[in-house]
Formats: sequence, C-alpha cells, structure tokens
Amino acid sequence: MEKIEHIGIAVKNISEANKIYEALLGSSPYKSEKVESEGVETSFFRCGESKIELLEASNSDSPIAKFIEKRGEGIHHIAFAVNDIKAEMERLKSEGFILLNEVPKKGADNKLVAFLHPKSANGVLVELCQEIENI
Amino acid sequence: MEKIEHIGIAVKNISEANKIYEALLGSSPYKSEKVESEGVETSFFRCGESKIELLEASNSDSPIAKFIEKRGEGIHHIAFAVNDIKAEMERLKSEGFILLNEVPKKGADNKLVAFLHPKSANGVLVELCQEIENI
Repeated sequence: MEKIEHIGIAVKNISEANKIYEALLGSSPYKSEKVESEGVETSFFRCGESKIELLEASNSDSPIAKFIEKRGEGIHHIAFAVNDIKAEMERLKSEGFILLNEVPKKGADNKLVAFLHPKSANGVLVELCQEIENI
Repeated sequence: MEKIEHIGIAVKNISEANKIYEALLGSSPYKSEKVESEGVETSFFRCGESKIELLEASNSDSPIAKFIEKRGEGIHHIAFAVNDIKAEMERLKSEGFILLNEVPKKGADNKLVAFLHPKSANGVLVELCQEIENI
C-alpha cells in the first residue's frame, strides 16, 4: 500500500456535512461527483497526501443507506492507493483476504477500485484504488 | 489540519490483528505501546505520511472495550496532525465543535492529543495530535 488514498465517511445530508467538514478541515471540497453505479453522491476534501470523501446515499438500495440505517453516520471505509490493483488483489487473495470484487471496477475520482470484506480486516471495509492514468 | 496522522482501529486481539495488518500493508509495526491512561495496547504501522494504529482494550472499562461491545471491531477514530493543538482547539470550539477535552492530554506515540465529540462531525470521533517535540 502506497498511502492512505482517502477515508470514506457516510453522511445523511452531504450539503450539511460539507459545511461541517469545511469548518473542520479549513478548506472546501475540491470535487463533487455522483457515482450512479454505487448509488452515492460524493465530495472530496484534500488533507495532506490523502483525502476525506463524504458519501450520501442517492437511493435507498445504496450501501451507504444500509450502513447508516444499521450503524448511523460515521467512517465507512479506508482506501489505500496501490500502483497495480490486479497484482495487489492477487497478492491479498493469496494471503487469505476475501475480495468483494473479482475484477476492479470504476469508482469515484477517476479510480479503479476493489474492496476487501470487512471480516478479513478486523471489521474494516478496505478499498484498493489505482489512478486510471497509471494504467 | 496538516495531514491524516493516523487511523485508529479497535481490535479484540492485537497480536492476531498485527499479523493481519502486516499481510495487508506489507510491513511490520514500527512501535507497540501500552497507554495506561487510556486503557489500551497499541501498535503502529506506517503507510505513506500516515499511520494505522491498532488498539486493544487492556481493561474492561477502556473506551475500546465499550466500542467493541457496542459495534464490534472496526475503525474507531481519525487523527489529524496539527501544529498548534491549543490554537486548533480554540478555533474548532468557536466553529461550534464539541471538545471532549478541555486541555490537551498525553497520548500514544509521543503526542499531545484532544478529541472532538462524534456528534460534532457526522459520527466520526476526531482526534487532534501535536508532536511533543513541536511544543
């Protein structure tokens, strides 16, 4: 893992949460993006070499809607930057981690992404991210 | 906030979790430390400019024991590096955030720390960290 690419935070209302995280981080989101395939609206804040991603469910089937229903708002996942997502998926599979995706998929912020099952990593939903430019 | 200093992950058994995170991150913890005042045993892994901190409760009154009892293992907090913790605490208080500490306290990894109440920040327990060398 090269670095923490971002931390994903599930929120009920992204415009309200944007104001809170602007005040917390002292900067505005550099990007807002709707990811239809995941049923989310997102906004991204820079923090050092990492980002904070806020996620609001855009429909009731969204994983974010289910997460909030079960646990309330809060940290949803950690994403790590990797240079070669396919190689890293193979490596982690051979280490015994359970992958939630057989192949990488297109995520927010111009990334190829794949997830590990939280039960593989002490309850943490881990995302692997590779910049699409790096492929 | 200068950067994500670390992400704290609550685990039931730190020696088992160390093996999992060694496999995940591809590196060993650079430090293990018991913080009596917080009732935790910790280990730290480097990841880019940030760290992953694993936390096991060292007694049943520990906040980590209570967190795991309520929610299971998982991400417990995000810590942001700040240059002047007292100034940042004042700034955040004036922005309406609820601080859990009136004054900074000594945390793990040679830091002065203070926490914001999760209800201030969409369910996220936020820690502010200042290196003690920087004071």
